[in-house]
Amino acid sequence: MNKRVKVILGSVRSERAGINIAEWVMKEVKEYQGHLDFEFIDLKDLGLPFMDEPMSPMASDKYVHSHTKKWSQTIKDSDAFIFITPEYNHGYSPVLKNAIDFLFKEWKDKPAGFVGYGGSGARGSIRQLREVFNFIGLKVMEEQVGIGKIWEAVDEKGDVKKENIRGSLLTLLSQIEEN
Amino acid sequence: MNKRVKVILGSVRSERAGINIAEWVMKEVKEYQGHLDFEFIDLKDLGLPFMDEPMSPMASDKYVHSHTKKWSQTIKDSDAFIFITPEYNHGYSPVLKNAIDFLFKEWKDKPAGFVGYGGSGARGSIRQLREVFNFIGLKVMEEQVGIGKIWEAVDEKGDVKKENIRGSLLTLLSQIEEN
Repeated sequence: MNKRVKVILGSVRSERAGINIAEWVMKEVKEYQGHLDFEFIDLKDLGLPFMDEPMSPMASDKYVHSHTKKWSQTIKDSDAFIFITPEYNHGYSPVLKNAIDFLFKEWKDKPAGFVGYGGSGARGSIRQLREVFNFIGLKVMEEQVGIGKIWEAVDEKGDVKKENIRGSLLTLLSQIEEN
Repeated sequence: MNKRVKVILGSVRSERAGINIAEWVMKEVKEYQGHLDFEFIDLKDLGLPFMDEPMSPMASDKYVHSHTKKWSQTIKDSDAFIFITPEYNHGYSPVLKNAIDFLFKEWKDKPAGFVGYGGSGARGSIRQLREVFNFIGLKVMEEQVGIGKIWEAVDEKGDVKKENIRGSLLTLLSQIEEN
C-alpha cells in the first residue's frame, strides 16, 4: 500500500512566496516513481485558531473543539509529511508550529521532511523545528531541501531553475519512502 | 526618567498556568525599589491574528492593518520587556512568536528578560527565543527566571514558594535597569 504523504505549507500571509514553492513541490511529486501518494494541505484553508484546547494534547487526546477533532483525524490518516517552511526572524512560523502543537500522538514515529525557503533555505527555522520534532517523535529525514532566493530559484511558470534543488527533493522523497 | 517595562504573557489558552505566574510577577515588581515602571500585556486581550501584513516588517513599517499599527505604537512606547513564556514541545508558543514577528525595528536595542514556566523552566523555549531575539536585536539579559513544576512553586494566593525564584527575578530586574 502506498504511503499517504501530506504536503503542508507553513505560511498563511497574503503575499506568501511559499504558495509558489508548494505548487512546484506538488508538480514534482506527481512525476515521482514510487509508492507514495501526495495531498496538499494549506493551513490557510484549515483556519485553526491559536491553540485553545483546555488540556495539553500530550496529556489527553479527548479534544473539546471540532476543529481539533477534524485536524486530528487528518493527521491520523497520514503516514508521512513534507513541511514547506518559511523562516521568520531565524525561527519557525507561528502558524506551522501552532498546527503541530494542537496534536501529539498523531505525529509519532511518522517520517517527515522539510522544504525550506527564503534566506539561507530557512536553515534556522528548520534547525529549531528539528528540535521540536525530535521531542514529539516525528522521524525527521536527513535530507532537507533549501531554496534560498526564491525568485532566482523559480521561474514565471513555477518551475525551479536549479537542477540540484530537484535532486534534493527526489532524495528526500526516497528517504520518506524507505522510512 | 523611569524605564517603561512591558510584561508580556505568551499564552492565551483557557486553562493557562501562565496567568498565575503573571500575577505573581506583577505583584513582585510593585515592590521593586528602582527606576522601572511596569505594565502587563495579555496577548489574549490584544487578539492579534496570525501575521497578515503583505510586507515583511523587516522590509517596511508601513503597516496596512490597524491592529499592527496599534501594536507597533505599544512597543514603540516601551523601553524594555519581560516575556513570561511557556514551553510547547521543546519550543516557543506560537502566540508569543507571532506577536514578535509582527514588528521589527520597534524591538531593536531594548533589554528583554525571560520568566519561563513548565518543564525545566521552559529552557528549550527560551533557548530558541534567544536565537530569535539575537536576530531581531533585542538585548537579552543573562539572568532568566525558571519555574519548573508550577503548582509546587506557587501557592493558592499566587505567592511563589521558593525564595531563589524571587531572587532570580530581582537579579533580572537589576540587569534590565542597568542595560
